[in-house]
Amino acid sequence: MEARKTLNFGMIGHKFMGKAHSHALRDVNMFFDTGVDVRMHTLCGIGDDLEQTARAYGWENCETDWRKVVNDPQIDVISICSPGVTHMEVAVAAAKAGKHVICEKPLAMSAEEAKQMCDAVTAGGVKHMINFCYRRVPAVTLAKQLLDSGKIGRVTQFRATYQQDWVDEDCPFVWRFDKAIAGAGSMADKGSHVIDLARYLVGEIAETAAMSDIFIPTHKDPVTGEAKLVTTDDAAMFLTRFTNGVMGVFQTSRVSPGYKNALRFEVTGTCGTIRFDLERLNELELYCMEEDKTAMGFKTIVVTEPVHPYIKSWWPLGHVLGWEHAFVHQYYELIKAITSGTYCAPDFYDGLQNMRVIDAVERAADTKTWVTV
Amino acid sequence: MEARKTLNFGMIGHKFMGKAHSHALRDVNMFFDTGVDVRMHTLCGIGDDLEQTARAYGWENCETDWRKVVNDPQIDVISICSPGVTHMEVAVAAAKAGKHVICEKPLAMSAEEAKQMCDAVTAGGVKHMINFCYRRVPAVTLAKQLLDSGKIGRVTQFRATYQQDWVDEDCPFVWRFDKAIAGAGSMADKGSHVIDLARYLVGEIAETAAMSDIFIPTHKDPVTGEAKLVTTDDAAMFLTRFTNGVMGVFQTSRVSPGYKNALRFEVTGTCGTIRFDLERLNELELYCMEEDKTAMGFKTIVVTEPVHPYIKSWWPLGHVLGWEHAFVHQYYELIKAITSGTYCAPDFYDGLQNMRVIDAVERAADTKTWVTV
Amino acid sequence: MEARKTLNFGMIGHKFMGKAHSHALRDVNMFFDTGVDVRMHTLCGIGDDLEQTARAYGWENCETDWRKVVNDPQIDVISICSPGVTHMEVAVAAAKAGKHVICEKPLAMSAEEAKQMCDAVTAGGVKHMINFCYRRVPAVTLAKQLLDSGKIGRVTQFRATYQQDWVDEDCPFVWRFDKAIAGAGSMADKGSHVIDLARYLVGEIAETAAMSDIFIPTHKDPVTGEAKLVTTDDAAMFLTRFTNGVMGVFQTSRVSPGYKNALRFEVTGTCGTIRFDLERLNELELYCMEEDKTAMGFKTIVVTEPVHPYIKSWWPLGHVLGWEHAFVHQYYELIKAITSGTYCAPDFYDGLQNMRVIDAVERAADTKTWVTV
Amino acid sequence: MEARKTLNFGMIGHKFMGKAHSHALRDVNMFFDTGVDVRMHTLCGIGDDLEQTARAYGWENCETDWRKVVNDPQIDVISICSPGVTHMEVAVAAAKAGKHVICEKPLAMSAEEAKQMCDAVTAGGVKHMINFCYRRVPAVTLAKQLLDSGKIGRVTQFRATYQQDWVDEDCPFVWRFDKAIAGAGSMADKGSHVIDLARYLVGEIAETAAMSDIFIPTHKDPVTGEAKLVTTDDAAMFLTRFTNGVMGVFQTSRVSPGYKNALRFEVTGTCGTIRFDLERLNELELYCMEEDKTAMGFKTIVVTEPVHPYIKSWWPLGHVLGWEHAFVHQYYELIKAITSGTYCAPDFYDGLQNMRVIDAVERAADTKTWVTV
Repeated sequence: MEARKTLNFGMIGHKFMGKAHSHALRDVNMFFDTGVDVRMHTLCGIGDDLEQTARAYGWENCETDWRKVVNDPQIDVISICSPGVTHMEVAVAAAKAGKHVICEKPLAMSAEEAKQMCDAVTAGGVKHMINFCYRRVPAVTLAKQLLDSGKIGRVTQFRATYQQDWVDEDCPFVWRFDKAIAGAGSMADKGSHVIDLARYLVGEIAETAAMSDIFIPTHKDPVTGEAKLVTTDDAAMFLTRFTNGVMGVFQTSRVSPGYKNALRFEVTGTCGTIRFDLERLNELELYCMEEDKTAMGFKTIVVTEPVHPYIKSWWPLGHVLGWEHAFVHQYYELIKAITSGTYCAPDFYDGLQNMRVIDAVERAADTKTWVTV
Repeated sequence: MEARKTLNFGMIGHKFMGKAHSHALRDVNMFFDTGVDVRMHTLCGIGDDLEQTARAYGWENCETDWRKVVNDPQIDVISICSPGVTHMEVAVAAAKAGKHVICEKPLAMSAEEAKQMCDAVTAGGVKHMINFCYRRVPAVTLAKQLLDSGKIGRVTQFRATYQQDWVDEDCPFVWRFDKAIAGAGSMADKGSHVIDLARYLVGEIAETAAMSDIFIPTHKDPVTGEAKLVTTDDAAMFLTRFTNGVMGVFQTSRVSPGYKNALRFEVTGTCGTIRFDLERLNELELYCMEEDKTAMGFKTIVVTEPVHPYIKSWWPLGHVLGWEHAFVHQYYELIKAITSGTYCAPDFYDGLQNMRVIDAVERAADTKTWVTV
Repeated sequence: MEARKTLNFGMIGHKFMGKAHSHALRDVNMFFDTGVDVRMHTLCGIGDDLEQTARAYGWENCETDWRKVVNDPQIDVISICSPGVTHMEVAVAAAKAGKHVICEKPLAMSAEEAKQMCDAVTAGGVKHMINFCYRRVPAVTLAKQLLDSGKIGRVTQFRATYQQDWVDEDCPFVWRFDKAIAGAGSMADKGSHVIDLARYLVGEIAETAAMSDIFIPTHKDPVTGEAKLVTTDDAAMFLTRFTNGVMGVFQTSRVSPGYKNALRFEVTGTCGTIRFDLERLNELELYCMEEDKTAMGFKTIVVTEPVHPYIKSWWPLGHVLGWEHAFVHQYYELIKAITSGTYCAPDFYDGLQNMRVIDAVERAADTKTWVTV
Repeated sequence: MEARKTLNFGMIGHKFMGKAHSHALRDVNMFFDTGVDVRMHTLCGIGDDLEQTARAYGWENCETDWRKVVNDPQIDVISICSPGVTHMEVAVAAAKAGKHVICEKPLAMSAEEAKQMCDAVTAGGVKHMINFCYRRVPAVTLAKQLLDSGKIGRVTQFRATYQQDWVDEDCPFVWRFDKAIAGAGSMADKGSHVIDLARYLVGEIAETAAMSDIFIPTHKDPVTGEAKLVTTDDAAMFLTRFTNGVMGVFQTSRVSPGYKNALRFEVTGTCGTIRFDLERLNELELYCMEEDKTAMGFKTIVVTEPVHPYIKSWWPLGHVLGWEHAFVHQYYELIKAITSGTYCAPDFYDGLQNMRVIDAVERAADTKTWVTV
């Protein structure tokens, strides 16, 4: 077999996100022609299951000290899948070491940290990406294409809801309930995703009014069993005005029974409407005004045709994709950007701006005023 | 045929709403046992088509002077279906004349007017009702029953959207586009309905933050063809906090392509969720947490069974109802209240409170502050 | 008020169907311009509730002897809503008396009877209609228009299911369970409707293979409480070949839990597909192949626009209709045919042909062979 | 890393199915604890792209002579993904060599061939599986569990449709259009899947009546461009009676515009109904009769909870799966069966019986008689 350039990856973090990123690295070259050999060089993590995990995921090596990975001269790209509190230090070190970086969301613990990360990757001249991978769900990418082509005219309104249901009484106290660690609750955890899609599809957010609350005041500590106080928001609702005049409205909630992972949005234009639901991620709904007025209606596009984004690399038409495929697409875009030197979004600046919006939403809720981003 | 008490109706207004109310009067005794004879005594209106309309609708008499109708000693109940600017004068006169009154929404042109109407009907000791008849859509009434029975636990969030699409370039300039006449746009026209449902299902609204805009700046005058400036909002979005702590979010729009008459709401509780869509008004969606966790999901209840509100008076199970049936139910409730002396909601005080909320939303949008209702 | 021609109706039968037909007569002139005065002259029925019913429905007179009604020189049109066993005698007498006739389905107890009825109305030179009114549901009429306009190309396949759920253990023994009275079960009761739509939308049926069964062997007599044997089919499935080569498949069932009144069909063409569901009768689903292959999908047309069949006579766009509106449309078509002398379908020959198809299905099931209609 | 038993796979065929099977082998140990090391030993295929494909898919070796793979003493399991015409020879040789075998559907070119394969694997004492992997879609497995638990009572009716739309005029002539190679058309290609699900969920099929046709008579040869005659059915419809008395109806079609990969089924029981759609494979619809009759309806179960089949091995709840995950589950079941010595279905006898049903359907269509399987 002929020689090709190899891209060596190091990954920091081996839990849920580490698994999803690892799987993306395994799959990317089987389905997409990146032109390089993707080598899963080293998985870095802490815990007794590291070795077994590394083997199961297909990593060649494992390591417990992230600095060694970041500074390993063999490694070209660092995937940051560790907790948010570690992002800045790892990313800055990686950038200094000349590594390209892809980082899980949220980018950092504060806008200040995020700013330092942006500065570092810019100074280092490396590629940087934040993994808002829902942009790479084929139906969402198609939505963007339809918007750009003017299919629904000038956008006037945007609505997004992102609801989940952590309402079962067995739901244990996890770090996301603790303001000291998580910063904010549904507003940040779910809000960051819908804000990213809003920025991707509609534009920059200028200002916001907001409201949030905690409805389930305690959850049981999984170890001690004692009730611990929830200090991050269970639900948030906020209005936004975009710089281009579009009106936006958002609802984020982790206390919405029946919604498993229900990120939904609707973009309203002057001559059409687009709707999306992450729980039916192979579909996009589109309404366009047409000449034949007797036969207009919302269309359910099954986004599984070769003409649709990313699809022809997978299976024949009609074979639906799942959640993790978006990660594969994200890595494909990252690798293309690295090998071709082109720009890849969403980058660290998107991550920073996302945090600024969430900060504004949080302040708006705290102060009961409209807050400029 | 045996003698029964007769209830004589007079109606002011013979356009769209007059038609819907007339039809309700025609149908009510065919399907419901009101215990009285409903007599369509006099239809009052202005225009060449009055006589023909009165005959087609089944009215015995027609009249152009509303004062004669209001003061006709034979008439027991006045239905006010004329433009909002006339509501106060007619209603006050009717109350003074001892007539029961049902009035179209909005109750009046201002909260002050509405207050006078409330005072008049209270002083007159007559029954009064405002026609927020969506409360009488069987699926909505069922939603209320389910909420009251605790099916979804304690309510935490409420979201409503009411979208229509007056976006066709042929859409002429109508009075609703003129702030001088209509007061507000989608915020009032559509907002009043969703606010009523919010108050019916959730409780009183305490405060609000809001935003609105005009996206289609002009429409053509249907007569002259010249472009006239739109001065009422095309779309509004607002947050509300209810006095019971529930968080609410609303979107009203008349510029949403694809939505014909899409009043939708979602009530979120601690252990369940309820959803409704006026375009599928025979259905109610319900999610409840159940013991068998493998088989939980949003249920689509086809609200056409004899056990459902109002249904057994109509057709055998499974025969769907339409939009105008809610008007029949509203008249049935009104007549029951009159004959039995019981209370009937929504009444003029509901109409007044509804206007206060809309006023607050409008001020919140104008001032970019949170406004107390 | 100016003088217009009056059309006097007499109706035989005052139960469920009598109610639906009466309501249609009440409504038709309020919404449609028939050009004549529709007079609800005499309601004929048997039972203590006749007078009260007649009054509630708006009939001027009531009568217990159908021959008097049929021979009343004042009466122009006879509506036959009585049990199937009476249809032939009433219709033949009415035709001989020169009355136009509209008859409930099934047209008669046998094809022989139906043939006599056809002969009588033809000999009498009167208008005749069978009330397969689902043809007049706006979405179904629209489906026909779309088919005729070639929107989905040449039809290749047709599938219809009509399911209800008479499975509750409280469901009493009714005449439809008794072969001696009802002839067949779901095959005839539900089958007749879907066969009519198949003939309306696709064409004549040439031959069939079929299967049927009884799954709930007994129901309780509502009076005595004892278990009575069911002798008509609970469910039937049949294949049909149309004379134009189209392939058809049908499922009828009264033992399908969850289906209240679920008549559904799908018409497949060479370049598109149409779907309909009676439980969502304001909607029609349409797929058409389009030039822009990225944005094709099944469209949900909300059939409530002024451009849609029958709609502009009702309410402004977006106000959904119910089940009984189809009866109003059917009467509108009947009256138009009478006053204008034009042809109106479906007529008695359609009723006869419908019975021939059901007979063939029944024989095919009994003999386990393909049977020619 | 500790030593574990290794299971060496050899795969025959590297096109669409080879890709799907290869991916399953790559993923199975990352998500499921099979207890063995899965080694992708050798990929066998013909064509210039074999080496590159093998590398991209993660195979260690490649080979063009299937006999070498089948007889390689290092290899434990043979995956047969090559054209149907090769299945028998490869499977029999593999069984003789003592290899376990998983084979793509259809099992063979004729029931006779299939019988020989069954005899060979039985004689060889090896595990054998046919890849009807839709049984392993979590929602389908859940359907089976719900049926087995009596959730919908005794089954009475089964309906399945499997429609695709190879109707685009660009659709080239492929081998499936040629009776000499493919045997039958939609009846076999799509029919085999729905028949397998029918047998899995309901039971054995006893007899059938059928009909089929060709609606698009020619397709263009992809090389020469000339029109070639289609000799396999575009669509088939058939009735079946199951040995347990259940009534079944099927529609298979490759000429249904708008349907990309729409395998749908509905199982009707005496007290409930289950529905599934492969295009929304993360969902299962369930109706059950309940005590509270006001709140019954079809439930949409989002089958993504840890309590659902296979799910907890993938991602946290609410993260939807795609089409190829069913292949991973199938391989997981196969490996479990091999390592534990337990039985795994569907096996070659299921493949054989499936072909017998299709043969019966084909004969029934050809002879226009009911045919016993």
